[in-house]
Amino acid sequence: MKKKTVELLNVGNEVLSGKVVNTNASFLSIELEKIGFHVKKVVTVADDSEDLRSEVLSFLNSDIDYLITTGGLGPTHDDFTKEVLFETVGLELVEFQEPIDLLHRYFGDNFAKCNLKQAMYPKDSILLPNDLGTAMGAYVEHNNKMYTILVGPPFELKPMFLNYLVPILKKKVDNEVIYKEYIVMGIGESAVEELLKDYYPKYQDIEVAPYASIGKVRYQITSVVSNKERFDSACHDFEEIMDDYIISTSNESIQEKVYQELKRLGYHISFAESCTGGMLASMLVDVAGSSAVMNESYVTYSEDAKMKILGVKKDTIDKYDVVSNMVAIEMANGLAFKTGSEVAVSVTGYAGPTGGTEEKPVGTVCFSIIINNHEWTYQRFFKTDRNTLRQKTSMLIYYYLYENLKRTK
Amino acid sequence: MKKKTVELLNVGNEVLSGKVVNTNASFLSIELEKIGFHVKKVVTVADDSEDLRSEVLSFLNSDIDYLITTGGLGPTHDDFTKEVLFETVGLELVEFQEPIDLLHRYFGDNFAKCNLKQAMYPKDSILLPNDLGTAMGAYVEHNNKMYTILVGPPFELKPMFLNYLVPILKKKVDNEVIYKEYIVMGIGESAVEELLKDYYPKYQDIEVAPYASIGKVRYQITSVVSNKERFDSACHDFEEIMDDYIISTSNESIQEKVYQELKRLGYHISFAESCTGGMLASMLVDVAGSSAVMNESYVTYSEDAKMKILGVKKDTIDKYDVVSNMVAIEMANGLAFKTGSEVAVSVTGYAGPTGGTEEKPVGTVCFSIIINNHEWTYQRFFKTDRNTLRQKTSMLIYYYLYENLKRTK
Repeated sequence: MKKKTVELLNVGNEVLSGKVVNTNASFLSIELEKIGFHVKKVVTVADDSEDLRSEVLSFLNSDIDYLITTGGLGPTHDDFTKEVLFETVGLELVEFQEPIDLLHRYFGDNFAKCNLKQAMYPKDSILLPNDLGTAMGAYVEHNNKMYTILVGPPFELKPMFLNYLVPILKKKVDNEVIYKEYIVMGIGESAVEELLKDYYPKYQDIEVAPYASIGKVRYQITSVVSNKERFDSACHDFEEIMDDYIISTSNESIQEKVYQELKRLGYHISFAESCTGGMLASMLVDVAGSSAVMNESYVTYSEDAKMKILGVKKDTIDKYDVVSNMVAIEMANGLAFKTGSEVAVSVTGYAGPTGGTEEKPVGTVCFSIIINNHEWTYQRFFKTDRNTLRQKTSMLIYYYLYENLKRTK
Repeated sequence: MKKKTVELLNVGNEVLSGKVVNTNASFLSIELEKIGFHVKKVVTVADDSEDLRSEVLSFLNSDIDYLITTGGLGPTHDDFTKEVLFETVGLELVEFQEPIDLLHRYFGDNFAKCNLKQAMYPKDSILLPNDLGTAMGAYVEHNNKMYTILVGPPFELKPMFLNYLVPILKKKVDNEVIYKEYIVMGIGESAVEELLKDYYPKYQDIEVAPYASIGKVRYQITSVVSNKERFDSACHDFEEIMDDYIISTSNESIQEKVYQELKRLGYHISFAESCTGGMLASMLVDVAGSSAVMNESYVTYSEDAKMKILGVKKDTIDKYDVVSNMVAIEMANGLAFKTGSEVAVSVTGYAGPTGGTEEKPVGTVCFSIIINNHEWTYQRFFKTDRNTLRQKTSMLIYYYLYENLKRTK
């Protein structure tokens, strides 16, 4: 399957900062594959114009077709992507009116002077509008290579890419591509690989790529349209092997799936959280429209709060420990009683780094799920740091919540 | 300031997945700078051994001193970093006993066979223990270049790097380095750049690098020890210019600062969250030891929940709108009354994508902070997507919370 190849070049300080780069690289890689481009290399260089120049030269000398840069389009003295890139490529920048109008709309007439450089682009560029910021992107071709500059912030980059760049790129590919994606949860990556060990050799002509993140793995199966029969067979086999763990065949999050099940059932949900400390509620609130299914929720971090708000008995804590299935059950029942929610979810755990008991070391979590009068309670152990533990716990609870809701009539 | 240069090479599928890469690249860049190494290039290649080989060749032909790989040390068929890297470099792998012992401890005697390849390393390697997983790292030198392979998962990588690699690396540098870091909040990046526009030209011999993420910017000022006078002067001037916005001179999070202030005052805190939906509480729970300052908190997403739990008046909602300073104030007061917490924080907002009014469009948030009998209420507008809005709102609330706590005697 011959695809046009892409290098993603992330530029600027934000690259070394936090969430920014990785989201962009991951997002662009996945979306480009879908339309028949293949990301061969992802490079990030910091705020040094020499390093950027040297990487652009390396691209010019490579067999890669297409260079996409992200970041470094802002007004600060560290933003020089456009200038260095196109100088190295040999394309002069000229002033465009559209970005100037945008700056006026955004800041009024007295915008900072350093913003003005945001109006300069190579002459034959197609500008890519920015619905949420002041820096516009651009697409341009030169000497049989393609170039695109995109903004850095992911929430600006995504609409810029999907709404304005994708329509341009779709006209540039020869081979139409089909793909299918699967979100797999409730099973570790090693265990999946054991399940798939005979599958991979059978489908070497089909692209099967896992993308792991905390608590879930996304699999994408990709092929050219002309190979559709093999593609269908690969999807069919994958679904058969992974049946128990596939929670979605689109890139929906697990909380979106839970939201949809709650909507289907007409149920409301409440959370009582100890070690996750609001993360479960926050994940659901992340879904647009979640107000329709969300009842009040509680962060009951102390023993006192568990007793006072949820009616957990002192005796139960003393006898079974505050991290125990019994306390989780009492929390969920107290929560269901107090809120009247059809679905009640509780969690208590030792997130560390201190605390825990010999029997229940740091990393032990207990959680309880009530759906009407049905009740499930789980105890799990995770060996990881505090924050990852909280995220893994939240993902696993959503997985069980979804599995149990799905089976509810 | 001549530093040994580094290329970070992220390998494997997890690279394109989610949080993994970026955290590692950012973490390693920052920590390496502190001990006198300079990351010149960060490259990620996906699960294709040819692409990996070609990048290793490009490193061999470059003037970069040191290659650090992350990821691809696991047992799956996509994990081949070690094999491809050292074959390309020309170093043979031999079996080490230590990793085999580790696998036995981890899995007992019947570990998956595919794990066995995790015991192979180049002959003169110094192995880097993994406190939290089965894959060990390694450090080795060959033909005047340095090589290190590290694991992918950040919670395994961080202790491996800090506890086992840093002591080795400290012996390899010629120039001792000094640095100071500043966390800056409550001001946008463009505004900071305007404040610093005369500062940068004055200190061209000193490294001043901003690392922006949602709601905050981390500045690091770095220099060689021999230039200490200029370094001190650069720090002094920076502190004078940025005085109002520096919340920390270590890489502590804002919630850690808030936690420390609450401890100092002996106060407890409760949250009543609407659009943030548990994120504020969750951020504080992220701090180890937060149970000492954390009282019960509430996610009151619906109007009903705001009235039922916090005693917000129907009249107030009808008259001022559910997103209004008045509702935020009533929420905070109801919360303080109900919980008895000295510190009560409330937030209500239109996170979108639908909702909002003409006067208060999507992106409007109102929040209220009570510290004893003092009360502050703020209204802000963010033009961004739902999730970023919730994060920016949370960061800003923590900023004001900290600023107000700091001034409390």
